[in-house]
Amino acid sequence: MNKIVAGVDIGGTNTVIGLVTREGNCIAETSFPTQESSDFETFTDKIASQALNLIEQQKGNLNLLGVGIGAPNGSYITGQIIDAANLRWKGTLNLCSSIEQSLKVPTLLTNDANAAALGEMLFGDAKGMKNFVFVTLGTGLGSGIVVDGKLMVGHTGFAGELGHTNVKPWGRECTCGKRGCLETYVSASGLRRTVFKLLSLSNEPSALRNFTYDAISAKIIADLAQKGDRIAINAFENTGATLGMKLADIVAVFNPEAIFLFGGLSKAGNLIFEPTKRHMDKNLLPVFRNTVNVIPSGLENKNAAVLGAAALIWKTLPK
Amino acid sequence: MNKIVAGVDIGGTNTVIGLVTREGNCIAETSFPTQESSDFETFTDKIASQALNLIEQQKGNLNLLGVGIGAPNGSYITGQIIDAANLRWKGTLNLCSSIEQSLKVPTLLTNDANAAALGEMLFGDAKGMKNFVFVTLGTGLGSGIVVDGKLMVGHTGFAGELGHTNVKPWGRECTCGKRGCLETYVSASGLRRTVFKLLSLSNEPSALRNFTYDAISAKIIADLAQKGDRIAINAFENTGATLGMKLADIVAVFNPEAIFLFGGLSKAGNLIFEPTKRHMDKNLLPVFRNTVNVIPSGLENKNAAVLGAAALIWKTLPK
Repeated sequence: MNKIVAGVDIGGTNTVIGLVTREGNCIAETSFPTQESSDFETFTDKIASQALNLIEQQKGNLNLLGVGIGAPNGSYITGQIIDAANLRWKGTLNLCSSIEQSLKVPTLLTNDANAAALGEMLFGDAKGMKNFVFVTLGTGLGSGIVVDGKLMVGHTGFAGELGHTNVKPWGRECTCGKRGCLETYVSASGLRRTVFKLLSLSNEPSALRNFTYDAISAKIIADLAQKGDRIAINAFENTGATLGMKLADIVAVFNPEAIFLFGGLSKAGNLIFEPTKRHMDKNLLPVFRNTVNVIPSGLENKNAAVLGAAALIWKTLPK
Repeated sequence: MNKIVAGVDIGGTNTVIGLVTREGNCIAETSFPTQESSDFETFTDKIASQALNLIEQQKGNLNLLGVGIGAPNGSYITGQIIDAANLRWKGTLNLCSSIEQSLKVPTLLTNDANAAALGEMLFGDAKGMKNFVFVTLGTGLGSGIVVDGKLMVGHTGFAGELGHTNVKPWGRECTCGKRGCLETYVSASGLRRTVFKLLSLSNEPSALRNFTYDAISAKIIADLAQKGDRIAINAFENTGATLGMKLADIVAVFNPEAIFLFGGLSKAGNLIFEPTKRHMDKNLLPVFRNTVNVIPSGLENKNAAVLGAAALIWKTLPK
């Protein structure tokens, strides 16, 4: 019997389940729409039955050691999802206990970015690192932070919300209800907002003037920047300035060995990495100069969320 | 023979040495001016000889187990002081190795705020806490952060510099060379700067108009606020607003159980605690509401720096 862990990524749109080996290979994967179950019990039953189906399809030679789950507002401490904005079930959801009851194996939960950070540590480019920060740049900005070799989870299991720290008092409205959060500037949607601000400020001709707000994407902005569009280039410059300044603060607080950037926006490569590093370096205290690398995630072309979720369990098992 | 640890607090003005029991009692203490030694070797020799003197004065019944040191820019990882702005010896100073050579006992170093955080954990009100943040509000703003029961030191030993994280892009000039650092707003000197800004903005009569910039102190501002001076009250309100907003960010990142405030400014009591807590609560993400206490340090009337330095060693020894 080969040992296997199920990694589950619960997203606002889809829930993905993968079977992950100790080496970080996902040997089978399935998914279903998250919101199709009207009650939460039906949803957790579906996770359990789909995981069992996946295992059976492997002709019975797999031994399931545990289930790791990444989910928005998932608490590592309580195993519960609490008040997740993008799920249809409200309040406090007892996720781990109900999966454990169905599958009779240890089940661990954390938020998606925390899970991905663990994935980087076990299966990516953070192998052997004791102190690093993992930043996901998608629609929003998520983060997972590893301190002294352990994922930082905090007192109630929700540590690591860099996306909702402030970068500008009375700045842009955030979906969380606050203003000026980092993710309103540094994320795919933040980049779009920056483009629209720049279009309002300057008379520079730009192909971006042909797009509606909803039609524009980080990919379109990156493609135009590659072609020399000044507005698109400046949007990345401004985004890198805000991220770089925040990363300098992160370095002052965590003194990490590396900061990994992951997700849609990070795929723009040097368009985002160059200004980010330049502005970070400019804002570092002398004692932190040349102590930290800002680098792409080693999981960029893999299913980081599923691998990371599985890493929650693999990390607890002796080699 | 009773077991004892020497706690050493190296400040810009004085170096204090105390003998600290496992229970956190400082049974003897001495100090000398830090800057009177022209070279660093003379300085470390003096620390060693004064520590031995203190022990001899106790009539030979003490067994020195180790030396813990708190110093500006002190690295826990390397045992070195690097480029400390307020010491006369420049560059990299091999502090721990030279004390170890003289006294033949384990010697550990960290910065002063980190040491004080450990003091709070071993001897103060953070006993039993796994995740907390300790903030010193003196001339500047220092911090020490405990994650999962361990002082967070980072990759090169300099983690925990909250004072130099940004609160306002292009804000006030900081002694570190950057602009808009938290400590330019939230510290004794930040409070004074805020008073002068408020005096410039309003026509409100205030006794504070009778003071020169250098003559004014946090104590004077606090006393006038207690008497109802509107400028003084508003200065604390503004300081609490900036600190509270930053603490909400700290909670989002660290999810701590408690945040301790220590030092000159924290002695103003509710003048600083009330607005700080109010503005923190207003800026907390829902998931963090009612999860964290902002409270005064339990070491407020003790020599936190010396106790904390000694805690570096006591923490490593079995009970």
